[in-house]
Amino acid sequence: MTPPGNDTQAGIRRRNLARVLQAVAAHGPLSRPAVAARIGLTRAGVAPLVDELLRAGLLVESGPAAPRGRGRPGSELVVSDRGPAGLGAEIGVDHLAVCAIDLRGRIRARAAVGAANRNSTPGPVLERLGELLAEVTGRIAAEGLRPAGLAVAVPGLVARGGTTVVHAPNLGWRAADLAPGLAPVTAPAGSPAVPLTVENEANLGALAELRPAGADGGRPGPPPDFVHVSAEAGIGAAVVVDGQLLRGARGFAGELGHVPVYPDGRRCDCGGRGCLEQYAGEAAVLRASGAAPGRAGPGARIALRARRAADGDPATVRALEEAGTALGIALAGAVNLLDPRAVVLGGALAGLAPWVLPSLERELTLRTAVAADPARAGGPLVTVSRLGADGPLLGAAHAALRGVLDDPLHSCAPADSPPVRTD
Amino acid sequence: MTPPGNDTQAGIRRRNLARVLQAVAAHGPLSRPAVAARIGLTRAGVAPLVDELLRAGLLVESGPAAPRGRGRPGSELVVSDRGPAGLGAEIGVDHLAVCAIDLRGRIRARAAVGAANRNSTPGPVLERLGELLAEVTGRIAAEGLRPAGLAVAVPGLVARGGTTVVHAPNLGWRAADLAPGLAPVTAPAGSPAVPLTVENEANLGALAELRPAGADGGRPGPPPDFVHVSAEAGIGAAVVVDGQLLRGARGFAGELGHVPVYPDGRRCDCGGRGCLEQYAGEAAVLRASGAAPGRAGPGARIALRARRAADGDPATVRALEEAGTALGIALAGAVNLLDPRAVVLGGALAGLAPWVLPSLERELTLRTAVAADPARAGGPLVTVSRLGADGPLLGAAHAALRGVLDDPLHSCAPADSPPVRTD
Repeated sequence: MTPPGNDTQAGIRRRNLARVLQAVAAHGPLSRPAVAARIGLTRAGVAPLVDELLRAGLLVESGPAAPRGRGRPGSELVVSDRGPAGLGAEIGVDHLAVCAIDLRGRIRARAAVGAANRNSTPGPVLERLGELLAEVTGRIAAEGLRPAGLAVAVPGLVARGGTTVVHAPNLGWRAADLAPGLAPVTAPAGSPAVPLTVENEANLGALAELRPAGADGGRPGPPPDFVHVSAEAGIGAAVVVDGQLLRGARGFAGELGHVPVYPDGRRCDCGGRGCLEQYAGEAAVLRASGAAPGRAGPGARIALRARRAADGDPATVRALEEAGTALGIALAGAVNLLDPRAVVLGGALAGLAPWVLPSLERELTLRTAVAADPARAGGPLVTVSRLGADGPLLGAAHAALRGVLDDPLHSCAPADSPPVRTD
Repeated sequence: MTPPGNDTQAGIRRRNLARVLQAVAAHGPLSRPAVAARIGLTRAGVAPLVDELLRAGLLVESGPAAPRGRGRPGSELVVSDRGPAGLGAEIGVDHLAVCAIDLRGRIRARAAVGAANRNSTPGPVLERLGELLAEVTGRIAAEGLRPAGLAVAVPGLVARGGTTVVHAPNLGWRAADLAPGLAPVTAPAGSPAVPLTVENEANLGALAELRPAGADGGRPGPPPDFVHVSAEAGIGAAVVVDGQLLRGARGFAGELGHVPVYPDGRRCDCGGRGCLEQYAGEAAVLRASGAAPGRAGPGARIALRARRAADGDPATVRALEEAGTALGIALAGAVNLLDPRAVVLGGALAGLAPWVLPSLERELTLRTAVAADPARAGGPLVTVSRLGADGPLLGAAHAALRGVLDDPLHSCAPADSPPVRTD
């Protein structure tokens, strides 16, 4: 019998290259012995792997470290700030955004525009997104970076593992394959193809929360069992269990916006009644607070609502409190079902937390007594994302680098050298 | 560096013994070459593993198979119907039950009694359960079977991996460690200790759905992504993702009974309002159908309600329809969040499916349009457990055999031979 593919020589080598690169990305600078200790290989086993990653330009030496203990001083390793870049893109209901990060997780370029995407067709939206992507890739090329992947965040359901938006109600898109429209970016003439990922924006927001804490200087992220809630026009959630996204049988998990909160309540566009989105979605909050939808991007609208709430505008404060109540009811269901370690408010909700949290936490405490009792200290911990509205875009950029981190040499041969075969 | 423990020689051997035993348990009778093909080892590699399992009495030869193709005829292997037995026990609100299964998954003995366990203390309940267990183990001993594990199903929250019932509201138990009270069974004088597992009954019901289809003649179980709902006095659910139970950060996942369905509705004992249990729990249905709680065991009460509904008793039919509506609302939330491949009605609900399902499915279809649309054919598939009210008890018995299947020689050396060291 053939052994399983991941136990072949080539498979083991690929996995070990990935482990070295991931260890340095998450915890660098690291000496070679420190890398060996972290991943459980011998120093002799690590040395050729490091050499290959140095030759490929994925790792660089940070200069000799200060001698410590016995043995010769060795230089320390860091991931390169040149070479592969992850391109993240976000298609919002009224904005488009693009950013590029390097292997260190630093944002190297970004661009965003307001855009009336609601009920537009995918064609012109992707064309405009392509222009932003071209602008960003042009800027990073000047700094020695090349796109190693593109991930696009969309406010809708995406077929698991595919590039097709199955349904994005707030864009009015159905069965829209984004691959053809993004071909100018993903299949550029004369350059290597750029792998494309399309993913629900709440899932990418959660992935951004999950990325290695070391990548941006050691700030700890939330624990690896959490429900991440984000909102723009709609409301989405991502469920993370043991550090892994729960995607659902078809990839459609996380539709928190259509969890029923008042079963005999307002009609929803989905055909249901009393869905969370009808009480805590953007349109509902704007309506309740008496604000006009306007054309400003979501950042501007959130800032406006936050300013009004901070000024004590009664209608705005009441609307956000009602949104918090509805969110608390829906999340009580999620907490009873999933027993997560934390609930993280991300996306646009992060900026509105001061006004949404009190009523949200009141409902959650009232309605999770059995699940919470008695071992949990003070009920489920609701936290606010440190990334705010940028989460999905950053998560997309990180997802775009995933291929390099999982298979460093295969995904990422420099364009000017022959591809390195690993199988 | 030491390689990870599961890559040591002893670890690999233990895993391979387990793979052989599991393959034969799920798919036997199997010839040695068929075992080798199933688990991806060579015939020469499988031979000594099979010999060890034969010596330990876990496998037996089913006699020479008919010659087929080239090569000498070989006998086929089946798991033994003697040797290790899994003891399953169930503590219900008004009954106690025990059963024993052999490695073939066949029930070899069972015993059950009605018992008024609500608001009793654990001591006398465990004493009575111990008597039932002694009766069952006595009967199986006469057939050459010995307990290899005991798993107890309880209607409450259990600390993950522990033996303590954190809270069982319908029993009135809090922080009750079941291990001391079951010591006469788990630490019998002069015999090997019997490992104890304590687990939520809904989780065990789901595990029963998951056991290998081959074990009872090839009937296929539900797909490995499902939400399993069961009800006795309370309502519990188990979430299975990719064939694994989702237990939650502390082991408290699956509290479907306290998902809010009518947020301003009836007060619940948990402190919340409008919990599912207040509309679809046994007490609620009995109240709504005008039936007296009575002292009959749950089987009898379910039969009574089913008979009344079948007779067209309007109050009973209406009560079950309302229970289905509430279940549908709560499950709509679960389906939107989790995107399972199926929803399985188990436990007492299985017997009431004809009256509960129509309203349940109506709500589910109405409220999962976004998650269901458009790839899912006809909405999420609601199925009825083939095990009915026996699910949790059978799941417990299977869970009790898990240790043998995962580590055949370590857990299961015959009492009359020296223990086989595997590490």
